[in-house]
Amino acid sequence: MDTIKYTLPEERMPTAWYNIQADLPEPLPPVLHPGTHQPIGPADLAPLFPMELIKQEVSTERYIEIPEEVQQVYRQWRCTPLFRAHRLERMLDTPAHIYYKYEGVSPAGSHKPNTAVPQAYYNKQEGVRKLATETGAGQWGSSLAMACAFFGLECDVYMVRVSYDQKPYRRALMEAFGARVTASPSPMTQSGRAVLAEHPDSSGSLGIAISEAVEVAATSGGTIKYALGSVLNHVLMHQTIIGEEALLQLEMAGEYPDIIVGCTGGGSNFAGIVLPFLAAKWRGDRNTRIIAVEPAACPSLTKGPLAYDYGDTAKLTPLVKMNTLGHDFVPPGFHAGGLRYHGMASIVSHLKHLDAIEARAEPQLRCFEAGLMFARAEGIIPAPEANHAVRGAIDEALRCKAEGKGQTILFNLCGHGHFDMQAYIDYQAGKLQDYEYPQEEIAMALAGLPNIG
Amino acid sequence: MDTIKYTLPEERMPTAWYNIQADLPEPLPPVLHPGTHQPIGPADLAPLFPMELIKQEVSTERYIEIPEEVQQVYRQWRCTPLFRAHRLERMLDTPAHIYYKYEGVSPAGSHKPNTAVPQAYYNKQEGVRKLATETGAGQWGSSLAMACAFFGLECDVYMVRVSYDQKPYRRALMEAFGARVTASPSPMTQSGRAVLAEHPDSSGSLGIAISEAVEVAATSGGTIKYALGSVLNHVLMHQTIIGEEALLQLEMAGEYPDIIVGCTGGGSNFAGIVLPFLAAKWRGDRNTRIIAVEPAACPSLTKGPLAYDYGDTAKLTPLVKMNTLGHDFVPPGFHAGGLRYHGMASIVSHLKHLDAIEARAEPQLRCFEAGLMFARAEGIIPAPEANHAVRGAIDEALRCKAEGKGQTILFNLCGHGHFDMQAYIDYQAGKLQDYEYPQEEIAMALAGLPNIG
Repeated sequence: MDTIKYTLPEERMPTAWYNIQADLPEPLPPVLHPGTHQPIGPADLAPLFPMELIKQEVSTERYIEIPEEVQQVYRQWRCTPLFRAHRLERMLDTPAHIYYKYEGVSPAGSHKPNTAVPQAYYNKQEGVRKLATETGAGQWGSSLAMACAFFGLECDVYMVRVSYDQKPYRRALMEAFGARVTASPSPMTQSGRAVLAEHPDSSGSLGIAISEAVEVAATSGGTIKYALGSVLNHVLMHQTIIGEEALLQLEMAGEYPDIIVGCTGGGSNFAGIVLPFLAAKWRGDRNTRIIAVEPAACPSLTKGPLAYDYGDTAKLTPLVKMNTLGHDFVPPGFHAGGLRYHGMASIVSHLKHLDAIEARAEPQLRCFEAGLMFARAEGIIPAPEANHAVRGAIDEALRCKAEGKGQTILFNLCGHGHFDMQAYIDYQAGKLQDYEYPQEEIAMALAGLPNIG
Repeated sequence: MDTIKYTLPEERMPTAWYNIQADLPEPLPPVLHPGTHQPIGPADLAPLFPMELIKQEVSTERYIEIPEEVQQVYRQWRCTPLFRAHRLERMLDTPAHIYYKYEGVSPAGSHKPNTAVPQAYYNKQEGVRKLATETGAGQWGSSLAMACAFFGLECDVYMVRVSYDQKPYRRALMEAFGARVTASPSPMTQSGRAVLAEHPDSSGSLGIAISEAVEVAATSGGTIKYALGSVLNHVLMHQTIIGEEALLQLEMAGEYPDIIVGCTGGGSNFAGIVLPFLAAKWRGDRNTRIIAVEPAACPSLTKGPLAYDYGDTAKLTPLVKMNTLGHDFVPPGFHAGGLRYHGMASIVSHLKHLDAIEARAEPQLRCFEAGLMFARAEGIIPAPEANHAVRGAIDEALRCKAEGKGQTILFNLCGHGHFDMQAYIDYQAGKLQDYEYPQEEIAMALAGLPNIG
């Protein structure tokens, strides 16, 4: 048997996003105002987001209808394929059944357009002219740039300096879509200038780039809004289209997952595949182990305390209760740039707190090793971020082999690595190293956490 | 209306390749032995190809069944989507209906796996251990490397020196699939050493790289065979899966093309989409204009005479009657590396001779301009090769606008440009130029054509 593809006919495609807030056994802790430390309301977020997204952020409706215009764009590449990885199973000689959902078929090459498209759509609906955002590896920036091109919005991207220099091709893709890309920290914003004054050679971080983009929106008088590619509740909800499709596709295959694996940076692709299955678990229908795999060099879920923290370095964002390494933490320059965020989505942190998910941290060399095995078996070269999920799935498949168990494993292959080949070149040349767990840096960053009950 | 996708359900996918040799009004001119200038027989090709492919090369059966094992691999990404480009139509404000078949969804990112997979399969069936091949831009090399990984064959790729240096990411992809990649001309072969002796700094050409790969196979005693990514009859036939699918997908859309556009280098993606429609045209069912778009800097179809010539520089291959610029012609280093071949497939040349197709040559700047328009409208960044087809389709759509005609245009978007972003960077920075038609170089190369009736 060869690798098999499952896709849904158009008439069976999900038409709503799933909102986990409807089913949480305890509600999420409130988001606090950065100045007053009191719970924020919609008016506090209005300078940054269109009202429809603010409503979605706090909604407790179980399903939220996907606007027809967004569904039309989704259908250009969705339903994304679910593959039964027969060739990988043979290579591993495992009795496990391995399925992967492949989000790399989107034009931007990852799951990010699932939320970029509705965000651009709602902003356009509310008369916004331009979106400002940050990007690390460039997956998010290129997705938002594409969505803005589709809906006729301008797009300003603050790209973490180290990626701006290392990944000119991702930058070129954003510019091809018509976006303006600025290396962060930049002299364009007060936040950027403050960092540059102290560290003129700063390589940047997602936290700093977020500060810049938020500042641009907050000081624009309403014509520019801010867009975030992960972490927030509405972003994670838009990604549930992945899991909603996978549920139906696995039904076509006559299977249900015993184990689901996703990689976590901010948490959005992980949540996207996991949340719809979690609902079934909570209803008592099923018992599925859910595993988040994060980089050992930026281990927010496995090493960060659950605490209130800022989403950015300049402390412009609201305070969110999350697993965090501290908003001042600048992770080492490892190659999975999309996983270099100090915090974790509130929803994912909450699920960890509720023991609804497991988490593990993996060093990068083991992840690249897994990625190359996968490429030779399945023909797809994964993004370095996605290699963390591949590693987790392969490890579970090898455990199944050792235990003689034919379990069903589902993982999310959230993007391809076409723009990340330098990382593979470095890996194959033996130039990559594993980073030590940056204990001291994290301890220092954690000392800077705000002191909130 | 937004861009619309059409795909075939698995049970409607074509299970046979279409062989135009069954329907040609005049048969193809014979292929001649390079030494004797007499028509060759199967025994002459046996050192290079497995017997099944030699049979396909000369077959006049109308349909050849696709082996089940090949169909299984095809189904990983096929049927490839056919899109109605509503967003592009709106951008151009044209009454034309524009459809594009998108082959970039294959794991290697182009149409090339359509033939790489069956070639690897048939070689594996006949006990071959290793395949040797050449590659220009790397689309073909990475596809064959992937197919070899799937079927457990070794793969040796001779990569044109200029691409080897300019496109390290394509090379990394081939190496990720486990192939050995050597810059051509290389010191590994007699053909390579001969070129290096004369031109130590040679930037290489497809003609030279073919000589090297053919030599490796011919001198291996049968354990190594040669694989070619375009030009040959069996290669073009494998690509007809594109047009066979497109026929059915357009039927779903309730349309039939008035115009079909493809880009031509060796001719395989063009033939792949065109030949099944040509059959209908010859049966008298339909009247479709068929347009080949080639680079102005390597204009074999529009400027090369129809003559017997070698497929390679070292004159190791048989003599084929084709539109050629001369086997010594080394095209300027423009960015569509996949279109830098001195000759044209015998089938495509023959169709031009029969006036069954039109041809035009386009300078690269107009092609990149078209590619960027397409990217902003449709979200997909085309390969520089594919930009020639995009240009041709857009020009036809603009003609329709000028003439107020609602014609239906189909074009083949044969691959994405994820590994070609440097070309877009150079284009956007104004660093690319159009090459003059290299009249003198071509005249010199044509003077070297063998003197055959």
